[in-house]
Amino acid sequence: MIYADANGSLPLLPEVKDYLATRIPAPLYANPNAIHSLGTKIKMGMEKSRKIAADVLGANFNQVIWTSGASESLSTVFHHLLLPKKNKNVIYCSPIEHAAVLAAMDYYRATWDYDVRFMPVDLDGMIDFAWLSSQNHDNTAMIVCMAANNETGVIQPWQQIRDLAKKCVTPFVCDTTQIIGRLPFHFEESGLDWAMASGHKLGALPGTGFLLARDPGALKPIIFGGGQENGLRGGTQNYLGVETLAVAMQTFAKKLATLEQHNIWRQELESALPKEAVIIGKKYPRLPCTTLVGLPGVHGQGVQIELESQDIFVTTSSACSDNEPATSKVLRAMKVDDVLGRSVVRLSLALTATHSDYQNLTQALLTAYQKLTRIKAY
Amino acid sequence: MIYADANGSLPLLPEVKDYLATRIPAPLYANPNAIHSLGTKIKMGMEKSRKIAADVLGANFNQVIWTSGASESLSTVFHHLLLPKKNKNVIYCSPIEHAAVLAAMDYYRATWDYDVRFMPVDLDGMIDFAWLSSQNHDNTAMIVCMAANNETGVIQPWQQIRDLAKKCVTPFVCDTTQIIGRLPFHFEESGLDWAMASGHKLGALPGTGFLLARDPGALKPIIFGGGQENGLRGGTQNYLGVETLAVAMQTFAKKLATLEQHNIWRQELESALPKEAVIIGKKYPRLPCTTLVGLPGVHGQGVQIELESQDIFVTTSSACSDNEPATSKVLRAMKVDDVLGRSVVRLSLALTATHSDYQNLTQALLTAYQKLTRIKAY
Repeated sequence: MIYADANGSLPLLPEVKDYLATRIPAPLYANPNAIHSLGTKIKMGMEKSRKIAADVLGANFNQVIWTSGASESLSTVFHHLLLPKKNKNVIYCSPIEHAAVLAAMDYYRATWDYDVRFMPVDLDGMIDFAWLSSQNHDNTAMIVCMAANNETGVIQPWQQIRDLAKKCVTPFVCDTTQIIGRLPFHFEESGLDWAMASGHKLGALPGTGFLLARDPGALKPIIFGGGQENGLRGGTQNYLGVETLAVAMQTFAKKLATLEQHNIWRQELESALPKEAVIIGKKYPRLPCTTLVGLPGVHGQGVQIELESQDIFVTTSSACSDNEPATSKVLRAMKVDDVLGRSVVRLSLALTATHSDYQNLTQALLTAYQKLTRIKAY
Repeated sequence: MIYADANGSLPLLPEVKDYLATRIPAPLYANPNAIHSLGTKIKMGMEKSRKIAADVLGANFNQVIWTSGASESLSTVFHHLLLPKKNKNVIYCSPIEHAAVLAAMDYYRATWDYDVRFMPVDLDGMIDFAWLSSQNHDNTAMIVCMAANNETGVIQPWQQIRDLAKKCVTPFVCDTTQIIGRLPFHFEESGLDWAMASGHKLGALPGTGFLLARDPGALKPIIFGGGQENGLRGGTQNYLGVETLAVAMQTFAKKLATLEQHNIWRQELESALPKEAVIIGKKYPRLPCTTLVGLPGVHGQGVQIELESQDIFVTTSSACSDNEPATSKVLRAMKVDDVLGRSVVRLSLALTATHSDYQNLTQALLTAYQKLTRIKAY
């Protein structure tokens, strides 16, 4: 099996499976907030995990807030920044954000009358920073832009937006979900006020994640509870999930050195594709393990099915859009035409992938393309 | 080991551990929203789990929304009912609610200027329904009351409140977290608009739970995402946790017949306690496996530590209050005095507990009490 849908979700890492093989049978289950020794031991494990995650992420221990995932983390920050509504009314948002952001923007527009303005984005998936910086930000309540796009892998100018936002004294929410675990990331050095990630994209248990907050004391929770996470996120913590997040973060830290190798393998794959193939966002820096390739003349879902018959799993866009046989929202925002848009497949490999995985994927893709063009499946 | 903190959190059920022993090594991990066959298989497992939970809970399939736990479920319902604020301004709330409710009420009072009024509650932990029904509800935005209290186990008059609320056309949120998995519960027959529970209180993986919604289509989410859970709860689902919830619900359904036995064992335990012991809420119907016992003259935390030395785990209140050596908020709301309040221990056994667990717990409690009164530890 070659699993090339890492941007959608990562299978549990072998290290996480090994951890769970001994952890689950152990008689160490209780409420981490109870003061009996079982609870205390679990809490200590959770706090040790917090220290591990904080160290890998370049954050302070108290800046790590455990959540159920990046969507919850993002919704928490939006709620914190936008409600109750104050005097500023405009939100600048990139149109290629993850659905967790776009759906939230719909809500704040429709229910709270925020004026949500979308930044232009070019055909290769890069947002137009010059346009954003040319706007008057006196009335800007928030700017939102992801660090890297989940479909194209294109790295966005988030450092420039951060500096612009600082200059304009405007909150900036950078969705870091796609770069954490895929690129080096250091919260302190990032200068961001918030960062977030999902455990299921890191090879930890699903239903886990975190929010990093530069100034955690000021955060208003959206899930209320009995003082867990310093009062910032209610609900008994998913301590088992948290422990696997620590294992995943440690594993990622060890694999960081292989990123450059993955970059090279991805470039090899891209060079070996047929000359008709269009690598979306090719001219920009992209995530090491992500290629969005258009194969005009064939249907992306055809390629997906063809590869699946060889036990290779890819998608045509993000999971949220994958079940629509149409150009994805991200590509539509980029004004990619339907012929190209419906022909794309997203290849996103895990850091556990080997050189031969890349080579086999390349070969399978070439074979599928030849077959599909020959039978004029589209 | 005797684990008598089931109301705080339940260890993974043996059935759940068995399930995970074969599930975790299986190569079945992916985004359940992806359309490749891995994603589809996982989605099918999640939907099968939804059907199992719905059947056990007497709900329709589409009324089950997976969340990260009861705190999230409650926060979702409050957000849905209270924001944006409409013309009604009063919330009636019991003062013995779980911290997930009380902290939310603080927020809606302080931030949104709701007038939160607390119902009186008697010394045995029963809310005053006559008082609630005597109020004018023309301006009532919401009534909140738990089905059973987590510390005393006292079952509250939630059916009467439900009928009152229906008569007054006022939304009623009944926190069912403590009765689901501890008493028979049938959502359709309950007549409630909402119900919720946490997986970690049912022996499933932590970080799981659900919200039951009578009219799910109308619900506004608080966590936004890519259309997961019919657009009602964003974020890639904790599918592994969901599968264990189904195992736990099935196990509970099988154990329902043993509830009466547990009730008898608990009564045996209560009868065997020293004559000075005060069973809080004794005169009211209570949860089958919960006893809150005051042992005036000794300190509850002393009993807790003494029992722990015999590998028996109890708490002095809910986990959220357990680390304060003071009378819990719930008991203070009941106007229990400090001498009694600081002497209590909560015994809450799982449905996996045996008769000899009850007998051994009784004996250990008697021994601890004798020892502590003899050395005048308090």
